[in-house]
Amino acid sequence: MKIEKIRDGARGEADDEVAIEAPLEIRVGGKALTVVMRTPGHDEELVRGFLFNEGLIEDAGAIESITRPPNLVGDEVGNVLDVTLGSHQAIQSERLFYASSSCGVCGKNAISALRVRAPIIDSDSLRIAAATLATLPDRLRAGQPLFARTGGVHASGLFTPDGTLEAAREDVGRHNALDKLIGWAVERLPLVDRLLVVSGRVSYELVQKAIAAGIPLVAAVGAPSTLAVDLAEEFNVTLVGFLRDGGMNVYTHGHRVV
Amino acid sequence: MKIEKIRDGARGEADDEVAIEAPLEIRVGGKALTVVMRTPGHDEELVRGFLFNEGLIEDAGAIESITRPPNLVGDEVGNVLDVTLGSHQAIQSERLFYASSSCGVCGKNAISALRVRAPIIDSDSLRIAAATLATLPDRLRAGQPLFARTGGVHASGLFTPDGTLEAAREDVGRHNALDKLIGWAVERLPLVDRLLVVSGRVSYELVQKAIAAGIPLVAAVGAPSTLAVDLAEEFNVTLVGFLRDGGMNVYTHGHRVV
Repeated sequence: MKIEKIRDGARGEADDEVAIEAPLEIRVGGKALTVVMRTPGHDEELVRGFLFNEGLIEDAGAIESITRPPNLVGDEVGNVLDVTLGSHQAIQSERLFYASSSCGVCGKNAISALRVRAPIIDSDSLRIAAATLATLPDRLRAGQPLFARTGGVHASGLFTPDGTLEAAREDVGRHNALDKLIGWAVERLPLVDRLLVVSGRVSYELVQKAIAAGIPLVAAVGAPSTLAVDLAEEFNVTLVGFLRDGGMNVYTHGHRVV
Repeated sequence: MKIEKIRDGARGEADDEVAIEAPLEIRVGGKALTVVMRTPGHDEELVRGFLFNEGLIEDAGAIESITRPPNLVGDEVGNVLDVTLGSHQAIQSERLFYASSSCGVCGKNAISALRVRAPIIDSDSLRIAAATLATLPDRLRAGQPLFARTGGVHASGLFTPDGTLEAAREDVGRHNALDKLIGWAVERLPLVDRLLVVSGRVSYELVQKAIAAGIPLVAAVGAPSTLAVDLAEEFNVTLVGFLRDGGMNVYTHGHRVV
């Protein structure tokens, strides 16, 4: 995809390849079991490994076949697999599975579901200088006591447009770090005049949470996924990735980075 | 905790702080809603943010109070929060939540649940030279075409003790990468003569999946969590972290690294 790269103060258009993130619906005997967000490829192995690793089947012999259901339409195509178990085999568990309301069978469904809940970000007053943005990972790091000691946690930080760190939260789970941060600010949503910086990669779920909180700019030290970019594009969120070493890639709505 | 550090061929004991990972059970009106694995701290914010970000409450006003239930015992202490909603408020969704069978209310429950399913690794023939181990991240990287192009995916690689990469899988989700890899090998479990190298951090879930697959050594380029270390210790898995720049930290069962 076409993105903007900012390096050493220079800004230019560039071609960039983004890791694909897309939902895979796993069915057993025609019935939906769960939806996982994954990078397409080796999907049958993913299903086998998932069922085994989660303790849902005893061994590989429990699976008779894995097929792509016919009659899929739209974004379902390529994103649904149906498992047929051998006779006398059944899923070993009565566990409930995570089924995110905003993550349907496909990216399109997910985006539709989100639109119902969170409006497109219509605030367009936030601006931040690229030079200021480039300093934020270091400022976030300074607000990460746990990382300094363990090297093992993710962080989410809320900044004002002048680059002041307002709050930072850390966790072994990056979604938890953002949940903690939004939980801290939840009394005064939407956060139309704040920006979010995350220490790692930025996937669908993080952008989704930022949109629900009304945050117009998300910047990640790591890479984004395709679905993160798609969501940000549609909901008028500025998405910045690879924010490191003084540079950054701007994936969507770059007018907020000046 | 006490660990072994290997740097420039020298091996010595060192003190190391590991990021804490522990389960938090979220209850609503006294009824268990979900269990999340998190780093303790800012737990009430986590609950507020989780409920809001997942679309389970409309706004912060829906929550009347969040309390620690009395009468908790053992590892539940400090790891359960109960949400009281305001009158006329209810959880907005009929969604199912992810509740891993091997992740109970607390680390101890989780470990007990796992023991039922996967035996402690009793194979003790695998040995790998530290010098060989140190080369594996580069070999894994060479088997990561997607990372090379996008910088945005996690990888899991299965290696033989002489350092040969047998298979590598990539995904935006690190659990998916491992699920794909185990799915590839699922016909010939347990993998008692193989070792697993993962590109990022190593949490509870990755070690759990390795144990279920019978893999006796897990090495991560990033940091481990406390629960990952605890599980590896108990199940006789060698856990290596910070495998980078020619060095590594050995957290458990270091006799397999020679």
